Amino acid sequence: MKDQNCGYCMKNELLDPFGIFICELDASVVVLFKEQSHPGRCIVAFKDHKSELTELTDDERNAFFADVSRVAKAIHAIFHPNKINYGAFGDSSGHMHFHLVPKYKDQFEWNGVFQMNPEKTFLSDAEYAGIIQKIKAELGV
Amino acid sequence: MKDQNCGYCMKNELLDPFGIFICELDASVVVLFKEQSHPGRCIVAFKDHKSELTELTDDERNAFFADVSRVAKAIHAIFHPNKINYGAFGDSSGHMHFHLVPKYKDQFEWNGVFQMNPEKTFLSDAEYAGIIQKIKAELGV
Repeated sequence: MKDQNCGYCMKNELLDPFGIFICELDASVVVLFKEQSHPGRCIVAFKDHKSELTELTDDERNAFFADVSRVAKAIHAIFHPNKINYGAFGDSSGHMHFHLVPKYKDQFEWNGVFQMNPEKTFLSDAEYAGIIQKIKAELGV
Repeated sequence: MKDQNCGYCMKNELLDPFGIFICELDASVVVLFKEQSHPGRCIVAFKDHKSELTELTDDERNAFFADVSRVAKAIHAIFHPNKINYGAFGDSSGHMHFHLVPKYKDQFEWNGVFQMNPEKTFLSDAEYAGIIQKIKAELGV
């Protein structure tokens, strides 16, 4: 089911304030997070407009976290972080999504949580396009 | 594989600084987070000492998130939060674990991320025991 007012459902300009659509996977929508204080930060949203992890069937949950792991492997391969953090918040969003936040030893927010949006590091359109191209190539999509 | 210096592996006093062991499930160790600014906050750690989500096999990952969902359902049933947040950080911990953080509309940290440890709200031993009893009953363990 899709919500016309939800960027993860519509994959359109509703994403613009924070992200850029990369691709769909089996059970998810992959979005590049524009704020790149953590190089490689992405969002993996469930393909349907469900709010809570507990609303997913076993098959949906398995497929979703297979996609999360697949995107995480791509981030590891391209950006070589020392750790990836995972966070799902969206108290009012209604559409379950996980932030995949690469962390680099002794660099920004290492050994802590991560901010929702540090609002510090934004790239050029060409730089975003370059990252998206690498991620799609690594995902084979 | 177990690490003798890891609380999630040993399920002993190494957990004391932040948590109380509740139970094991099929693929995980469930811990009550002592800091209860978010009533019902728990940790679900993978049963083995693996650091990254991407190190789990498909079967391990499916079983782990089935446990996460099972604990989340118990938290929903007992505490009735409006949302549960999920976060995996542990940049230096070496043992993958997810924080399950119940959020309550317009209350503490609603519509934001959550702190690693607000260090504000601690309960009596009897209160912790009461919560653990309810969670175990709801999980049927």
